[in-house]
Amino acid sequence: MEKGFGSDNHSGAHPEIIKALVDSNLNHCPSYGTDSYSLAARKEFQNQFSERTEVFFVYNGTAANTLALKAMTHTYESVFCSDVAHVNVDECGAPEAIAGCKLIPLKSENGKISVSQLKENLIRKGDQHFSQTRVITITQPTELGTTYSVDEIRSICSFAKENQIYVHVDGARLSNSAVSLNVNFKEMIVETGVDAVSFGGTKNGFVFGEAVLFLNPSLAKNFKFIRKQGLNLPSKSRFIASQFLRYFQDDLWKKIASHENEMAQYLFNQLKEVSQVEVTYPVQSNAVFVKFPKDWIKPLRKKSFFYIWDETTFEARLMCSFDTTKEDIEDFVGLVLKLSNESNKELNHDSIQERSPH
Amino acid sequence: MEKGFGSDNHSGAHPEIIKALVDSNLNHCPSYGTDSYSLAARKEFQNQFSERTEVFFVYNGTAANTLALKAMTHTYESVFCSDVAHVNVDECGAPEAIAGCKLIPLKSENGKISVSQLKENLIRKGDQHFSQTRVITITQPTELGTTYSVDEIRSICSFAKENQIYVHVDGARLSNSAVSLNVNFKEMIVETGVDAVSFGGTKNGFVFGEAVLFLNPSLAKNFKFIRKQGLNLPSKSRFIASQFLRYFQDDLWKKIASHENEMAQYLFNQLKEVSQVEVTYPVQSNAVFVKFPKDWIKPLRKKSFFYIWDETTFEARLMCSFDTTKEDIEDFVGLVLKLSNESNKELNHDSIQERSPH
Amino acid sequence: MEKGFGSDNHSGAHPEIIKALVDSNLNHCPSYGTDSYSLAARKEFQNQFSERTEVFFVYNGTAANTLALKAMTHTYESVFCSDVAHVNVDECGAPEAIAGCKLIPLKSENGKISVSQLKENLIRKGDQHFSQTRVITITQPTELGTTYSVDEIRSICSFAKENQIYVHVDGARLSNSAVSLNVNFKEMIVETGVDAVSFGGTKNGFVFGEAVLFLNPSLAKNFKFIRKQGLNLPSKSRFIASQFLRYFQDDLWKKIASHENEMAQYLFNQLKEVSQVEVTYPVQSNAVFVKFPKDWIKPLRKKSFFYIWDETTFEARLMCSFDTTKEDIEDFVGLVLKLSNESNKELNHDSIQERSPH
Amino acid sequence: MEKGFGSDNHSGAHPEIIKALVDSNLNHCPSYGTDSYSLAARKEFQNQFSERTEVFFVYNGTAANTLALKAMTHTYESVFCSDVAHVNVDECGAPEAIAGCKLIPLKSENGKISVSQLKENLIRKGDQHFSQTRVITITQPTELGTTYSVDEIRSICSFAKENQIYVHVDGARLSNSAVSLNVNFKEMIVETGVDAVSFGGTKNGFVFGEAVLFLNPSLAKNFKFIRKQGLNLPSKSRFIASQFLRYFQDDLWKKIASHENEMAQYLFNQLKEVSQVEVTYPVQSNAVFVKFPKDWIKPLRKKSFFYIWDETTFEARLMCSFDTTKEDIEDFVGLVLKLSNESNKELNHDSIQERSPH
Repeated sequence: MEKGFGSDNHSGAHPEIIKALVDSNLNHCPSYGTDSYSLAARKEFQNQFSERTEVFFVYNGTAANTLALKAMTHTYESVFCSDVAHVNVDECGAPEAIAGCKLIPLKSENGKISVSQLKENLIRKGDQHFSQTRVITITQPTELGTTYSVDEIRSICSFAKENQIYVHVDGARLSNSAVSLNVNFKEMIVETGVDAVSFGGTKNGFVFGEAVLFLNPSLAKNFKFIRKQGLNLPSKSRFIASQFLRYFQDDLWKKIASHENEMAQYLFNQLKEVSQVEVTYPVQSNAVFVKFPKDWIKPLRKKSFFYIWDETTFEARLMCSFDTTKEDIEDFVGLVLKLSNESNKELNHDSIQERSPH
Repeated sequence: MEKGFGSDNHSGAHPEIIKALVDSNLNHCPSYGTDSYSLAARKEFQNQFSERTEVFFVYNGTAANTLALKAMTHTYESVFCSDVAHVNVDECGAPEAIAGCKLIPLKSENGKISVSQLKENLIRKGDQHFSQTRVITITQPTELGTTYSVDEIRSICSFAKENQIYVHVDGARLSNSAVSLNVNFKEMIVETGVDAVSFGGTKNGFVFGEAVLFLNPSLAKNFKFIRKQGLNLPSKSRFIASQFLRYFQDDLWKKIASHENEMAQYLFNQLKEVSQVEVTYPVQSNAVFVKFPKDWIKPLRKKSFFYIWDETTFEARLMCSFDTTKEDIEDFVGLVLKLSNESNKELNHDSIQERSPH
Repeated sequence: MEKGFGSDNHSGAHPEIIKALVDSNLNHCPSYGTDSYSLAARKEFQNQFSERTEVFFVYNGTAANTLALKAMTHTYESVFCSDVAHVNVDECGAPEAIAGCKLIPLKSENGKISVSQLKENLIRKGDQHFSQTRVITITQPTELGTTYSVDEIRSICSFAKENQIYVHVDGARLSNSAVSLNVNFKEMIVETGVDAVSFGGTKNGFVFGEAVLFLNPSLAKNFKFIRKQGLNLPSKSRFIASQFLRYFQDDLWKKIASHENEMAQYLFNQLKEVSQVEVTYPVQSNAVFVKFPKDWIKPLRKKSFFYIWDETTFEARLMCSFDTTKEDIEDFVGLVLKLSNESNKELNHDSIQERSPH
Repeated sequence: MEKGFGSDNHSGAHPEIIKALVDSNLNHCPSYGTDSYSLAARKEFQNQFSERTEVFFVYNGTAANTLALKAMTHTYESVFCSDVAHVNVDECGAPEAIAGCKLIPLKSENGKISVSQLKENLIRKGDQHFSQTRVITITQPTELGTTYSVDEIRSICSFAKENQIYVHVDGARLSNSAVSLNVNFKEMIVETGVDAVSFGGTKNGFVFGEAVLFLNPSLAKNFKFIRKQGLNLPSKSRFIASQFLRYFQDDLWKKIASHENEMAQYLFNQLKEVSQVEVTYPVQSNAVFVKFPKDWIKPLRKKSFFYIWDETTFEARLMCSFDTTKEDIEDFVGLVLKLSNESNKELNHDSIQERSPH
């Protein structure tokens, strides 16, 4: 497969990160999280977030989200999420089936939900007929590539705390938002009052592996059992931990995320100049959402694969990865411009034809 | 950590297998099982088992077992297993909580369950008050290191088919049994009539990764949804597939399993000669279960770590891995013999002392 | 408690129906649905619906809905419902927690969902990341007192069949819609193509008891196990069956529903004339939804209890029951008119006062 | 159906109890447990048990057990029960599927489990691979008609408290044990330290209805949500409450249970004299378990229905109900004696025949 803009899952592993995985393949290690790599990675997460942060490695993002929600809810409790949230539309009903909780999707704007929506929907507290609200989950950056500001997160957390509700952040690409906001994880997550985070590895250049972080350690009390029962206790845990250690070493995380975000801006800056192309959301991480004319999609996807996000509007998602280069973008934009010129000519031609009867 | 006999999870990855993982880190690949590595690995499993075998990669063994059982049961159906089965005592209640089914543990002998037990316990068919039997799951090799003969598997499958019951094999170390029985997977699994297998990678030298195999393809129909919802859809699936491809190439699987089994026999042959040591089960794979005198355990575990399997009897499990060497065993047995001699001397000394008053 | 318009659950049991329950208290009966009353009631349901209808008694409406959905879905499948559906907002997350499925609420109009909405939301078939649509559930009459026409039901069922989807009807008050549409159950349910119905007893004058009906008998195959495991197998089943037998005898069901609907019309006809009162939905069963001026609510609820349906708009639900009389309504409307007159006077008075400075 | 010894579910409702249900059918009542009958019944339970007892009505015994266990466990926790416990073999896997917990059945003696068994099986605390023990559930009287002594219950509760485990009592026929032990509920349940009880109504002469009692009120905190979601919130709750009020009024509960126990003793005393009949357990409530010669079963069941408890040994359960009379028993025993005489004759005849060759 040629390089494309399909997903930051399509690129393989970052060379430095896979090297770290291989380098940890020495000697015997205790399994199930008690090896020295896991202990060191835990420490490093505590440096990046807070001393009291509890850290649990899991295999994938759906597991991180679903099991974090399971730790925060009873089955008679519900979770506010955006209507486009991964938990709502891309996890095949895992939160409902595995955590047993109810999701209450709120109509999002640019992928975000707002405090005023939360207020309006927080109803019927104590009513035994009604699943009780216990969690707000937001995605940072959102599924549409936008980033909540630190103030927005703080407001959501304040509202939550006033109402005895937890806040969870699906952070499959959290680093991209940190770079976009030019803040560190403490500022974005700890100081705002977030309770739990799904911290992504896979989409950031890992072979595999994610981490569930509990900033609120009371939620972590029995999580080891929830994780094991939730089919996500990695046996050779060193192989996830060593990747995270490398990710944080020398700010590699920041370099990767910065590069991805810059590539997205580079792509955005060129596409926005093309009259037939509509960029549909603010570009605040490593994704660019655009509407191309319908007949451009086939040739463009042939050159560089990408996903059609909305089959009714032909909105496309262009995802930049650690290995996306300026050349990749220029090649792609070259074809966009070619298609644009051709269609302008046709348009002119059509115009001429239309005028010709005169 | 020094090399020991703790677990085939304590050893890292086999050098050839981790190399294959690294070698697959080229270019972009589609994710979620549609890459060329995954398609080739699927083909290879079909060569090893049967053409109609359906193959699904998952992350770990608990997931493979639980999700396979979920595919085979409704929540009002139950599963016969041995009382020492991994599903019963080492998966933190995942089958019950995630598949919703009921486990009915049967008292095992040498880790095995028998057709006569199954017959005796297959009761109350159609009775709405009673969870209906739908699956028999056996572990091959068993948790106690023994191996079901091909005839035993065939008898269980015949009984199952007569009663519209499925047979699942937890094969976290299936290769070790194939080598031990000197048969291939077709003979042991396909021709006997097994419906589904959890085929292990992790304990056989992988970085991570297992496969759920449906020999009975009707069970596979909706498994992709069960796996995704079950928190076990690997995104960068090539990294599991490439390991399996290498595992089957040049019969590497057979070499690894043969070595492990031979090491277990080597260990067994020396331990059985030590009068104070009791080997508790037939050694038919890569595990040796022994009872050491209680006061030997501390010094022995200090030299080479191993698990105490039963805390009441001090039965120990010694596990051989792909990287276990004759030297490792000789070193360990050396200490066993030293302890044996010392205790014999003490015994003699004691005897003398005891006699001395006379 | 004085009689009011709170709920058709607040009235007790209809005298004829509780008499039938008492009359069945003779001799010993087999339990769990094999008694002669249960067999006769099953037959009677088959007369009312279709010969092949399968009938299962359960205790309450939430059970009927949740267990019917469980019979129709796998955990990786989802259910379209209206956003105001009882299953979505009044069952404390039971469908998600007990059936494990996902609900997809659609914005309703007058409590109904439309085929065009269903079409728009039926997406991503076969996509393993997305919970697959399997059921459409509608409430008849709706939670807002409106009734789907026979044509509307038929259209929904046609759309469903084209897409291999089941249709379930939450019919806690189904009789009220049958009377409202002047059709029988065959015409409304069987001939339109509905697959399953929750047929209410409790709100229609029963002591307790509901029935799950499968018009599509393939769905009933294992329902006895689902019901038992779903905590809803009545032991002394005769006591539910005898009530249903009486309910259908001499068209008692029609008499009760007709009376209730007429009382709702009587109430509606008088309230719609009061200028300060807004009737918010068409009155097509035994419920009248109205908005009263905020300060009327306290005195009105003191006279005759009713529920505030929407705490933000002060929309009230007035429910007529088998024992609601014209006098009850006239008394209530009398107070409404008194409040209306007083407020008009105040208004005039206010006007005068306002003018007075001049 | 003729009166028999099938089940205390086969008899209908006790005349006084059904009368109380009918008498509560006056006026409107709030639903869902806030009516005056429910409040009074709650008070009465607090009189019988303890002031701080929390009371929740549910529909049936499987619901009472399963939802009580759900209130006491997380899905990664397990429940010790006897191998013959109703929760283990007669609830179609409801505890596993609905509460999500794991049952660990212990081999019972006369239907009971002992502290020494509990001690032996309480293992692996804190081990993430192993479902953690949280509850001991015992049945009083047991499924085999035996009754735990007050000392036995106290010992189990002491052991539980030492180990941070809850004790639940399945008391579908708790009154029969209270009478058998000649104690009140305070002595048997509160003073021994039990945490939760499923208190039966249906089998004690009710139309329907059970109560979940939390002696340990911390367990009751969110039970209203668990009950509603668990498909067991009765809407017209007065109809259960009024039955319980009557059951406790004038010690009716004691009269019913005493009569039933006496009938069981009367039956036992006569059967034990019949040489071919083996009474298999101590008769300590209203059940008599016996082994009849295989060929007696058909004629005996034709006269008075009873269940074969164990299809392999032909052990039968004879259940006495509130309406069992001495005449019923004498009629039945009359036939037993007739069969006994005939078989003795045959035996003699056979002996003669056998001897005849000589």
